[in-house]
Amino acid sequence: MAEKKVSESKTEMSQLMMPQHANFGGTIYGGTILSIADSVAYVCAARHAGPNCVTVSVDRVDFRKPIRIGELVTFLASVNFVGHSSMEVGIKIFSENLGTGQKRHTNSCYFTMVCLNDQRKPKEVPRLVPETADEKRRYEAGRKRHEAARK
Amino acid sequence: MAEKKVSESKTEMSQLMMPQHANFGGTIYGGTILSIADSVAYVCAARHAGPNCVTVSVDRVDFRKPIRIGELVTFLASVNFVGHSSMEVGIKIFSENLGTGQKRHTNSCYFTMVCLNDQRKPKEVPRLVPETADEKRRYEAGRKRHEAARK
Amino acid sequence: MAEKKVSESKTEMSQLMMPQHANFGGTIYGGTILSIADSVAYVCAARHAGPNCVTVSVDRVDFRKPIRIGELVTFLASVNFVGHSSMEVGIKIFSENLGTGQKRHTNSCYFTMVCLNDQRKPKEVPRLVPETADEKRRYEAGRKRHEAARK
Amino acid sequence: MAEKKVSESKTEMSQLMMPQHANFGGTIYGGTILSIADSVAYVCAARHAGPNCVTVSVDRVDFRKPIRIGELVTFLASVNFVGHSSMEVGIKIFSENLGTGQKRHTNSCYFTMVCLNDQRKPKEVPRLVPETADEKRRYEAGRKRHEAARK
Amino acid sequence: MAEKKVSESKTEMSQLMMPQHANFGGTIYGGTILSIADSVAYVCAARHAGPNCVTVSVDRVDFRKPIRIGELVTFLASVNFVGHSSMEVGIKIFSENLGTGQKRHTNSCYFTMVCLNDQRKPKEVPRLVPETADEKRRYEAGRKRHEAARK
Amino acid sequence: MAEKKVSESKTEMSQLMMPQHANFGGTIYGGTILSIADSVAYVCAARHAGPNCVTVSVDRVDFRKPIRIGELVTFLASVNFVGHSSMEVGIKIFSENLGTGQKRHTNSCYFTMVCLNDQRKPKEVPRLVPETADEKRRYEAGRKRHEAARK
Repeated sequence: MAEKKVSESKTEMSQLMMPQHANFGGTIYGGTILSIADSVAYVCAARHAGPNCVTVSVDRVDFRKPIRIGELVTFLASVNFVGHSSMEVGIKIFSENLGTGQKRHTNSCYFTMVCLNDQRKPKEVPRLVPETADEKRRYEAGRKRHEAARK
Repeated sequence: MAEKKVSESKTEMSQLMMPQHANFGGTIYGGTILSIADSVAYVCAARHAGPNCVTVSVDRVDFRKPIRIGELVTFLASVNFVGHSSMEVGIKIFSENLGTGQKRHTNSCYFTMVCLNDQRKPKEVPRLVPETADEKRRYEAGRKRHEAARK
Repeated sequence: MAEKKVSESKTEMSQLMMPQHANFGGTIYGGTILSIADSVAYVCAARHAGPNCVTVSVDRVDFRKPIRIGELVTFLASVNFVGHSSMEVGIKIFSENLGTGQKRHTNSCYFTMVCLNDQRKPKEVPRLVPETADEKRRYEAGRKRHEAARK
Repeated sequence: MAEKKVSESKTEMSQLMMPQHANFGGTIYGGTILSIADSVAYVCAARHAGPNCVTVSVDRVDFRKPIRIGELVTFLASVNFVGHSSMEVGIKIFSENLGTGQKRHTNSCYFTMVCLNDQRKPKEVPRLVPETADEKRRYEAGRKRHEAARK
Repeated sequence: MAEKKVSESKTEMSQLMMPQHANFGGTIYGGTILSIADSVAYVCAARHAGPNCVTVSVDRVDFRKPIRIGELVTFLASVNFVGHSSMEVGIKIFSENLGTGQKRHTNSCYFTMVCLNDQRKPKEVPRLVPETADEKRRYEAGRKRHEAARK
Repeated sequence: MAEKKVSESKTEMSQLMMPQHANFGGTIYGGTILSIADSVAYVCAARHAGPNCVTVSVDRVDFRKPIRIGELVTFLASVNFVGHSSMEVGIKIFSENLGTGQKRHTNSCYFTMVCLNDQRKPKEVPRLVPETADEKRRYEAGRKRHEAARK
């Protein structure tokens, strides 16, 4: 089976927050963020393992710092860990006030994805090669979450 | 401070899954489900504590049984536990094949919500009164998750 | 041909009214309500007769009590009457103010639906079995509207 | 009170039918047509009486000739009749196959609209001046429907 | 090869500007106008040459007069010039204040379209027959732009 | 008046192309690309000059290489040139096949933006400081287009 470096599937996507993404008080819905994060996880997983990836689970997500209409939300994703057929995608979410230029780290979350074959069964995915110290640390943490979830 | 029974905020919402909710293989996106679940959690929390509720966190969500275009997805929500200002809303998600009538329990998830006052700060919410054995069991489990999350 | 009870296709669907559903004054568009009602009629008819149902006609709809952004609109639908291939679906629409908990009956409407076979022609649908006094009364009223519309 | 000719508020609007407007079989939803018709009725009423018009009722609508994805649907609307504060807008709906150029008359429907003042109460609207024989015939028919609905 | 008159594909489409089409200040996005104009160009080209038309280029578009929420935007399109396989569609855009009835000419733009055959290659399109002085002038101007773009 | 480097407002945004962005043949609409490009131009201009930026004009855009459903489209934008109150934003558009990883440069386009003050009039914007040879070349080319457009 082929292998890929973490850097080969790194993904950055951004979206401008509009009135339709917000509740009546102008705070962006958690559901908006979760929904965009799901498509970011798809792109990151597809870059590692090809299209036809689907979401298997999302780990706990905190929304402690509200995001407002008019902010630019940026999602930085990379594959942290790869099992036989599953991939853990870690996503860091930043929000930028376009008036002041201030950026805040608002959330982090983990999506577990698999990639389906023609029979719509999970297929084996390329082995992940972490290179930097950061990538190795995240690989190890992802491996532990993977094992904890299988218990 | 007022109190409310669990039954006073019980919420049931359903949505028909359309092509725009699905990926290229016809499986509904996890993000679609998370986004609807977020609005269901809002309605349930608002029935307990009034409008201006926002999502604070979402616990781990599993998507092991795929949902397909044309299915009716039903969300059953109730407030499980209430702290001083936070509410845990538990949501059970069912998917119904309208051709065969078959219903499947596809996911369960927990949203933590707060309700904001005029200064956009979390306000105290009505005390929750669990009545049935089921409600008391869920209250106790919610209390444990609440305490675990605060550590 | 099979038969089904009214209770087997009873349908309840709810949707939270958002800014994109409303005109500039904050009143929900009639078109929003009609469009959701159409999908509710589809679900109810499909539960009675299977998927591939289409709308044949909508009877007069009144919008005398305005619905506002932030209200939860609930649609209660049941099959009132069944001809050879057509079904009359009756829909009661309620709107709930999530702040006060007050619910109002805002509209009622009747959709006539048919279910298409593989040649996209209306097919025979299961006979309807009304059980309660209410169901029998609605069946009779639906039969009269059905006959009036055929004249 | 001012008066306006029928021709001053005549409205023509068209929309291309896309996959998101259709059910799984490629037939356009009745709800899509009702929702666009509602915005056409708004424009026609607003041209007669100014903005802040809202829908009061929709008369029976038939969907006997299905509309398909890729067709251009055109709505021709005019104010048929005007009471003290209500306007009846008649809408003829045509669908055009852009490949063959064939146009079909698929539906007709009547919307009753009122225009709100600053207290959100229906206000008096300009008197309608029908000029052609057709306009006079429609005025008379609208007047009869108006009186029948008030009984 | 067949030929068609300019009048056979003349196209008029209108859309009511809603909050979701506007930025935070209530001015309609340029992107909204460009996106609707693209669908208008499609309808006009498809009326001349059949479905499966795609956009090849858009000439410079100016947005000097802002359009506001609540205005009705009307697009008047005609085929100006036809090469072997390409069509230039000219679009005039007007915005109408529904309160005052005032109409303004806000933009004009040119879309170049081709129509694809079954192998998704541009196919020959019907020859264009300009009849009025205006149509002949636009034909000549379109021919010059066509030749300038090929240099 | 303040000044900013080109690098301070450089913008990268990506979006996954979905069925609702495409025509019946699976090719993404030009209007979809123009509409996203407009929001990218807004973000880039707002990073240079603050929020409340609006589009003044879009230069000729070519769509010669079709983009398909399932591709990831990436927009790279920078401010090329700044006049007294107007900014030229240049956008390069790339499309990536997530299956093969192949990226293609599909379009380039220029948006002219201004930033509005509280009276909704164009305000003076920070001077632009090009640093690299590339930035200086683009500045000069933008200056020429700016002057040509004013003639």
